[in-house]
Amino acid sequence: MDFVMIGAPIVGILALLFALYKANYIEKMSPGNDRMKEIASFIEEGAMAFLKREYRALSIFVVVLFIILIVAINWQTAISFILGAMFSVFAGYFGMRVATRANVRTTNAAKEKGMNEALNVAFSGGSVMGMCVVGLGVIGVSVLYMLFPDPSIITGFGLGASSIALFARVGGGIYTKAADVGADLVGKVEAGIPEDDPRNPAVIADNVGDNVGDVAGMGADLFESYVGAIISAITLGLAAYGEKGVKFALALSSVGILASIIGVYFVRGDKDPQKALNNGTLVSSIITVIFAFILSRSILDSTKPFIAILAGLAVGLIIARITEYYTSADYVPVKRIASESETGAGTNIIAGLSVGMMSTGGPIIVIAIGILVAFYASGGLSEPISGLYGIALAAVGMLSTAGMTIAVDAYGPIADNAGGIAEMCDLPEEVRDITDKLDSVGNTTAAVGKGFAIGSAALTALALFASYTQAVHLSGINLTEPDVIAGLFIGGMLPFLFSAMTMEAVGKAAFSMIEEVRRQFKEIPGIMEGKATPDYSTCVDISTKAALKEMVIPGVLAVIVPVLIGLLLGPEALGGLIAGALITGVLMAIFMANAGGAWDNAKKYIEEGNHGGKGSEAHKAAVVGDTVGDPFKDTSGPSLNILIKLMTIVSLVFAQLFLNYGGILLNLFK
Amino acid sequence: MDFVMIGAPIVGILALLFALYKANYIEKMSPGNDRMKEIASFIEEGAMAFLKREYRALSIFVVVLFIILIVAINWQTAISFILGAMFSVFAGYFGMRVATRANVRTTNAAKEKGMNEALNVAFSGGSVMGMCVVGLGVIGVSVLYMLFPDPSIITGFGLGASSIALFARVGGGIYTKAADVGADLVGKVEAGIPEDDPRNPAVIADNVGDNVGDVAGMGADLFESYVGAIISAITLGLAAYGEKGVKFALALSSVGILASIIGVYFVRGDKDPQKALNNGTLVSSIITVIFAFILSRSILDSTKPFIAILAGLAVGLIIARITEYYTSADYVPVKRIASESETGAGTNIIAGLSVGMMSTGGPIIVIAIGILVAFYASGGLSEPISGLYGIALAAVGMLSTAGMTIAVDAYGPIADNAGGIAEMCDLPEEVRDITDKLDSVGNTTAAVGKGFAIGSAALTALALFASYTQAVHLSGINLTEPDVIAGLFIGGMLPFLFSAMTMEAVGKAAFSMIEEVRRQFKEIPGIMEGKATPDYSTCVDISTKAALKEMVIPGVLAVIVPVLIGLLLGPEALGGLIAGALITGVLMAIFMANAGGAWDNAKKYIEEGNHGGKGSEAHKAAVVGDTVGDPFKDTSGPSLNILIKLMTIVSLVFAQLFLNYGGILLNLFK
Repeated sequence: MDFVMIGAPIVGILALLFALYKANYIEKMSPGNDRMKEIASFIEEGAMAFLKREYRALSIFVVVLFIILIVAINWQTAISFILGAMFSVFAGYFGMRVATRANVRTTNAAKEKGMNEALNVAFSGGSVMGMCVVGLGVIGVSVLYMLFPDPSIITGFGLGASSIALFARVGGGIYTKAADVGADLVGKVEAGIPEDDPRNPAVIADNVGDNVGDVAGMGADLFESYVGAIISAITLGLAAYGEKGVKFALALSSVGILASIIGVYFVRGDKDPQKALNNGTLVSSIITVIFAFILSRSILDSTKPFIAILAGLAVGLIIARITEYYTSADYVPVKRIASESETGAGTNIIAGLSVGMMSTGGPIIVIAIGILVAFYASGGLSEPISGLYGIALAAVGMLSTAGMTIAVDAYGPIADNAGGIAEMCDLPEEVRDITDKLDSVGNTTAAVGKGFAIGSAALTALALFASYTQAVHLSGINLTEPDVIAGLFIGGMLPFLFSAMTMEAVGKAAFSMIEEVRRQFKEIPGIMEGKATPDYSTCVDISTKAALKEMVIPGVLAVIVPVLIGLLLGPEALGGLIAGALITGVLMAIFMANAGGAWDNAKKYIEEGNHGGKGSEAHKAAVVGDTVGDPFKDTSGPSLNILIKLMTIVSLVFAQLFLNYGGILLNLFK
Repeated sequence: MDFVMIGAPIVGILALLFALYKANYIEKMSPGNDRMKEIASFIEEGAMAFLKREYRALSIFVVVLFIILIVAINWQTAISFILGAMFSVFAGYFGMRVATRANVRTTNAAKEKGMNEALNVAFSGGSVMGMCVVGLGVIGVSVLYMLFPDPSIITGFGLGASSIALFARVGGGIYTKAADVGADLVGKVEAGIPEDDPRNPAVIADNVGDNVGDVAGMGADLFESYVGAIISAITLGLAAYGEKGVKFALALSSVGILASIIGVYFVRGDKDPQKALNNGTLVSSIITVIFAFILSRSILDSTKPFIAILAGLAVGLIIARITEYYTSADYVPVKRIASESETGAGTNIIAGLSVGMMSTGGPIIVIAIGILVAFYASGGLSEPISGLYGIALAAVGMLSTAGMTIAVDAYGPIADNAGGIAEMCDLPEEVRDITDKLDSVGNTTAAVGKGFAIGSAALTALALFASYTQAVHLSGINLTEPDVIAGLFIGGMLPFLFSAMTMEAVGKAAFSMIEEVRRQFKEIPGIMEGKATPDYSTCVDISTKAALKEMVIPGVLAVIVPVLIGLLLGPEALGGLIAGALITGVLMAIFMANAGGAWDNAKKYIEEGNHGGKGSEAHKAAVVGDTVGDPFKDTSGPSLNILIKLMTIVSLVFAQLFLNYGGILLNLFK
């Protein structure tokens, strides 16, 4: 037991204390007038009610898996699993709760104190989620490692985090897009009322959706990546460097947390919120890089691991830039979609799909180069385990400043909500100007954050995959064997199946939402004149029920399929399955996220007055593209991040089982 | 030299004579009145002119690759390559020429002799392409094997076939959809005139497109699969069984040809054209299965290879059924797209995309099971080479009745053209009733044929991949090595990039077409009243130029990327690249083909009067889906079949080069 080992959980606790401090700061702010308080309480209650029902539904799943783990693996792994699930739940619950209190306070700060203070409140809200995620992540992994110094047990913690993440992303994604598509198609398109208009019955559900999808769902996603990366680094580090390899991974994560806390203090004082956020990210990255070098030299006596970490950071940054190129209206792709909207929705869709597909090229090449650099720079063929440890370190490096990245990410939906509240409470133009500005910065950070989430998921899943091959003692997974090819095919197909299911779920839920909104417009007299209050709660209920119902099958599938393939076709075929899912999962996630982002911004670009502006034929075509893009970028795409991580970690946890009993079907042939 | 070896080319010549006989039969039919002859000559001239220009452009590419092959490999392979390219060109040229003469004669037969005779003419036209493909395929491979009894040389023949196929599919696909989308969007949607209306300037280009895309492009695609499967069976058969393994593959193909010729005689005499076509396919399949069993027992003294062949046939049939389920209006998926069209184009697109993605599940599982059965039934782990030979035999088995399958496939666009000519020549209602009936059967066969093309491409590419691993003497391609993973990522990304390029090409070309048609409607007085003839040739020219220009980059990319990766990262990483491209290529091809087919039939279903029928809001939404589906199913999707085969065969041809000089970049690290 030494300084680093004890230091890690202490830094984790520090992060939680910082989150508490920020939460208190937000709590002390005024939530504004009665109308604001009322609207905000609708959103908060809807969001918290959903989360509670979601967690209740998940508790069955968690208990079942807990029992299976005790029986099939051991009680220690089962305990780790429960802890991982609970920590994820806690981070999601606390982070989102603060976010739903920060939104209205951001509006009020914009109203009473101006841009700087509004930015401060919104970002503080986001930083609570960020600090909860990294704090709980590091505490969980480091304490478990002290109790059970065996990485295979700690993998259970990752499984817990992954399970919750999958349901949170899928459920949250379905919730938010059903509400959004429903609210837009009837409110904006049919009734011609603006976004976030209080007359729209789905408006509260839409704002709730931002919280359950983009705050809680995103937080759970990155919590999973974060702990997954650390766990794979511990697994491979122990094999490559012994105890030192473990210490280095924990020390690096601790430094990243401290750097993120410092970074938070650099987000302020500027007229330009984008610049302020960038400053914070830059500061925490620089600190992390410097300490990564020092730690690499001092703990591992080598500069090689540092290069792997740099490679991971570079991959993250470059993917973020490429994402921006393909999804921002400043560049050719989005402009092309906008101009192709002039010949109708058909050409708008073709253009958006082709931009999304094209956008996979850069990130994939960057990831491929990143893998090769991380592997060869830190060991290579002569020391393959050190090389694989390098890949895990690249993932840890990329995620080391997750505290900051998540804060910036969660800031977006808080600012979006703040704007919605300003609109619904009919606040003066100047207030909405501020919230609009904050919101538009949030749109950029959201697109970039998605790129980061995908890139980190790819590296994390790859590191976990490497851990898996170690766990099943496979010297190789032979791609020339038919069972591996069969696994590769089936694995590659799963992201398509999964995306189809989640898109269909959004389609179905949006359909019910549309019918309910239409019904209320027809049946509640005076609703359009603003004399009668719409029944927000039925819309909240539709989204809640649909999300809870539709998340079950894809979620359970993600756990069952790897177990089934492992048992029927054996651990090698399962390796093929994971690799296949990893490849198409990453590709589809990039494709869907970027196509969705590009459609969204092409629509906004037209709304700014280009190609005929609002109400033109081009605009109508662009609205169609945006509707398709919504489930692409906010439901199906992000869910794939988790699918690939979860399937890998399931395989890792049950590795021993497949080694002992795997390949039942193939044994019949032998 | 024995009976089978000499028998194969003789059967090939028989197929060509049969093709000639059928061509003569068609030639003797009357092409109808002067107006019909005139329209038909426009189509024929446009199609032949395109093919000539396409082949001229390709000759540069062929000569360059020929020289590279002489220098980098050997002159024998270069000769095989030239022969493969020439045979493909000849099959495409002759087959399409006859198709463009059969179309108007089908119309005239419908006019003067009724349904049976019209079906007979159209199907005879298709059978010419079918017999040319299988005849030239078997002649080329068997004669080359007699001259150079070394499979690695004959692989050059496959490369020649693949190169032409890629350009033919991509060029033809861009041509046909640019014309189709352009003609539809201005003619049907804007001007409100029916499909195939002679007032539409793009109508001739549209009909030309059916020939260059769906006849010549499809023929070249299946020619490639056909010879690719036989070549891989020869390669692996020689390794597994010696000379006997080669003989068996050739004997099986010969039997398949004879069975197809017999099958052709069973397509007749029925009131129901679908049933007539099914009869022919059934007869040739049964004959092939019986003889496959006899040959398996007599040549290889074993029933095992027969089981592999059965598995291949079963995969083909099941995929065809699944395709029908997802693309026919008789079943739930298409009906769901139609009903989701009621809430607009956005939900129509979401539904179509999710149906397409969902439809990958069944075929992939069937392919995976087929691979495992073929491998384990015919050798398995104890005799892995025999097992791989089993996979190649599955591909050969699936393609053995290609003569029949292609005939049925090529029948579709001939019937489609026949209907177009009837419309343009203003023939009586009864004639169009017959051609409509023939055309609607053609739509079903087209969707099923696409499923078959994808399934056979997957098995062929897999068999070629197995040959590749033999050629580079790799005992295994290790999926746990980062260079293989990097290859897998990049390979997996290529189908996305490729689809983006081809979709963009269609988008751009369609845009020019739309502008030209609009211009003619505006500038040529009397065009809408039918008093002035539109300038068909400028539209033909736009499609021709666009197709020739846009096919170059994707085509060259498909050849260069594997060579580059093989040289830079070595033969193992290249194996990863091929596997990655195979997986996502097959998935994307299924996804795009089925989504496109489903959108198409959802639109037709609405046009039949459901959900408000023609002109309703649901119909407008469905037209958007169909516009997106067009390049999906007829350009990007089918092009992927060839991409995966071509990249594999390029790797196979240059295998020795990568063995000697591959891995330049990785060697720097070592």
